[in-house]
Amino acid sequence: MADQIRIAIAGHGNLGRGVETAIQKNPDMRFVGIYTRRAPESVIPSLAGAPVFSMAELPGHAGRIDVLILCGGSKEDLPEQGPRLAALFNTVDSFDTHARIPEYFASMDAPALANERTALISVGWDPGLFSINRVMGEALLPDGATHTFWGDGLSQGHSDAVRRVPGVAAGVQYTRPVPEAVDLVRGASRPVLTPRQSHRRDCFVVLEDGADAEAVRQAIVTMPHYFDQYDTTVTFISAEEMENSHRAMPHGGFVIRSGNTSSTQTQVVEYSLKLDSNPEFTASVLVAYARATHRLHLSGQYGAKTVFDVPPGLLSPKSAAQLRAEQL
Amino acid sequence: MADQIRIAIAGHGNLGRGVETAIQKNPDMRFVGIYTRRAPESVIPSLAGAPVFSMAELPGHAGRIDVLILCGGSKEDLPEQGPRLAALFNTVDSFDTHARIPEYFASMDAPALANERTALISVGWDPGLFSINRVMGEALLPDGATHTFWGDGLSQGHSDAVRRVPGVAAGVQYTRPVPEAVDLVRGASRPVLTPRQSHRRDCFVVLEDGADAEAVRQAIVTMPHYFDQYDTTVTFISAEEMENSHRAMPHGGFVIRSGNTSSTQTQVVEYSLKLDSNPEFTASVLVAYARATHRLHLSGQYGAKTVFDVPPGLLSPKSAAQLRAEQL
Ligand SMILES: NC(=O)c1ccc[n+]([C@@H]2O[C@H](COP(=O)([O-])OP(=O)(O)OC[C@H]3O[C@@H](n4cnc5c(N)ncnc54)[C@H](OP(=O)(O)O)[C@@H]3O)[C@@H](O)[C@H]2O)c1
Ligand SMILES: NC(=O)c1ccc[n+]([C@@H]2O[C@H](COP(=O)([O-])OP(=O)(O)OC[C@H]3O[C@@H](n4cnc5c(N)ncnc54)[C@H](OP(=O)(O)O)[C@@H]3O)[C@@H](O)[C@H]2O)c1
Repeated sequence: MADQIRIAIAGHGNLGRGVETAIQKNPDMRFVGIYTRRAPESVIPSLAGAPVFSMAELPGHAGRIDVLILCGGSKEDLPEQGPRLAALFNTVDSFDTHARIPEYFASMDAPALANERTALISVGWDPGLFSINRVMGEALLPDGATHTFWGDGLSQGHSDAVRRVPGVAAGVQYTRPVPEAVDLVRGASRPVLTPRQSHRRDCFVVLEDGADAEAVRQAIVTMPHYFDQYDTTVTFISAEEMENSHRAMPHGGFVIRSGNTSSTQTQVVEYSLKLDSNPEFTASVLVAYARATHRLHLSGQYGAKTVFDVPPGLLSPKSAAQLRAEQL
Repeated sequence: MADQIRIAIAGHGNLGRGVETAIQKNPDMRFVGIYTRRAPESVIPSLAGAPVFSMAELPGHAGRIDVLILCGGSKEDLPEQGPRLAALFNTVDSFDTHARIPEYFASMDAPALANERTALISVGWDPGLFSINRVMGEALLPDGATHTFWGDGLSQGHSDAVRRVPGVAAGVQYTRPVPEAVDLVRGASRPVLTPRQSHRRDCFVVLEDGADAEAVRQAIVTMPHYFDQYDTTVTFISAEEMENSHRAMPHGGFVIRSGNTSSTQTQVVEYSLKLDSNPEFTASVLVAYARATHRLHLSGQYGAKTVFDVPPGLLSPKSAAQLRAEQL
């Protein structure tokens, strides 16, 4: 295609590899390269033949890239890389530290506006698709309640917390919604649920040689904030079982809005995701929103944006007329 | 509120009454009146004290109304009323004759553009929210399949068809998804389903005195297009049971997109609605989109639009900064 959208990634982890894969499902896009902080020759692209560059080369490559997808971590990488890169490129990222979004937004808005670039932040499924459904649910049913459930899925943050416990050689944590809580919410009774009533946490741990299993278990289940407010199980497994049964990164969840349009009439809206691979799905979402970012930029909408600012039609490669004729 | 959005309705049927009810849940809006083709004194507002005007007074009331919600029927009313009213007001409607949307869009676009008005067409849940999920599902998972299921719910069109059968004094029809089909689709096997495999149709009929039940049943189940391609049941009931058990207008359904981000990783996105009252929910959706229409108009976006053109944030009474801080 003559006018393919040229996509590059900054950072090559799970999400970066997912973007390489997702581009192959989108013929209106072309993958132009990986930019990494590491030595480029040490990074192996998923896409055979994809060029790998040093992050230091990015400023010289502004003319080659329509949208740069920032695939760094939300905690350390994006706050540092984002504002610098938003001055040079249209960007999309998956910044997911919910409490710091206003601050991150401001830090991206200024350089993007000053340089007539578009920076779409906090794209993915949560924040992202789930956020859209929280906002729409509340707007469509103002007299109601919204609940978000996560899982069944592997939580990266909680797995990291498990792995920091002394005596743990390897560990993963699965978050699971409590079925009774989900049923209550679907029943539109607008329950007030504690963390313990909403989710449970299941950990699988490989012990270090000589570690005290019971001490490890106690350290996990009593860990403040991460585990103490939940019913948590800890199952000890072998390194082989960890390798064979816990390498996938499934996730998902539900956003449920229930409400009343009048005293007798109840309405329930539910959005749910069941994901074999959290990073591949998140990357696929980033790629669709990269298309929208390119179009927002072409229409002169500069500065930082979020999924709340993106009309759904901009995500599709189809024209507005085709969407109206075929999918409305 | 000083700057409430002033909403009026053209046409006072199920949807019109639903809008009157929905406005009460939206304090940033004010209901300014009902406009009807019938004698105004013959129309009883749901909202105590709501003024009722003749449709003929609309051209003189342009300064009183920010958004006029068109609540006429899609078949006869909207194609005739819509283009006339789109020249005078910002409008929102629920035009749902899917095959004629491009034609209706063009007929609304020209007068709205010429008069710097915004006309948002085909708002509701299908077309409307389901359409958004069809477009987003395809964009997020390009290698996949989308299925829409409707029900359990009362179908107005199919109930009308039942009532046209000679010998039928009263009748309603419920559309129900076939559970096995829904399970197949959720399982991401991308099944190809016939109408009969996807939905069944249950009719409840009150016979006219002396009518031949078996003849009525045959006439219904063999009716081309409406029933012949489905497994249809016909249950004969008394006028009392019809009155007591079949006055509600429940509906709902699912849009399910399943797809692969890579050969081994499957992802499933599902959007579902469970509605006690189809018209009250649809009206509540129209009202939220009236807010967005007002804002699109204020920002100079004239002409016909669809839900594909509306950023989700415009539906909410909250500011963009508040949404980012609280709901992203
Ligand atoms: N919004 C959502 O729904 C959502 C969903 C999932 C994830 N996320 C976000 O996405 C972010 C990135 O997730 P991720 O799973 O891609 O993180 P990750 O695999 O840890 O990658 C993060 C960065 O670490 C570097 N890296 C990767 N592998 C490395 C290695 N072997 N040695 C040294 N450095 C390496 C890469 O940068 P260099 O190439 O420059 O070294 C990469 O960009 C997360 O922080 C999370 O916040 C959001
Ligand atoms: N997009 C979606 O998801 C969705 C969902 C549901 C419905 N819809 C659409 O909404 C449209 C309207 O539905 P509705 O249930 O409101 O239709 P309805 O009750 O039949 O009302 C349609 C019009 O008929 C007139 N009318 C109402 N009651 C009357 C009476 N007793 N005698 C004479 N005229 C009367 C009213 O106009 P006047 O006041 O001017 O006489 C009214 O605007 C449907 O055609 C359907 O296409 C769309």
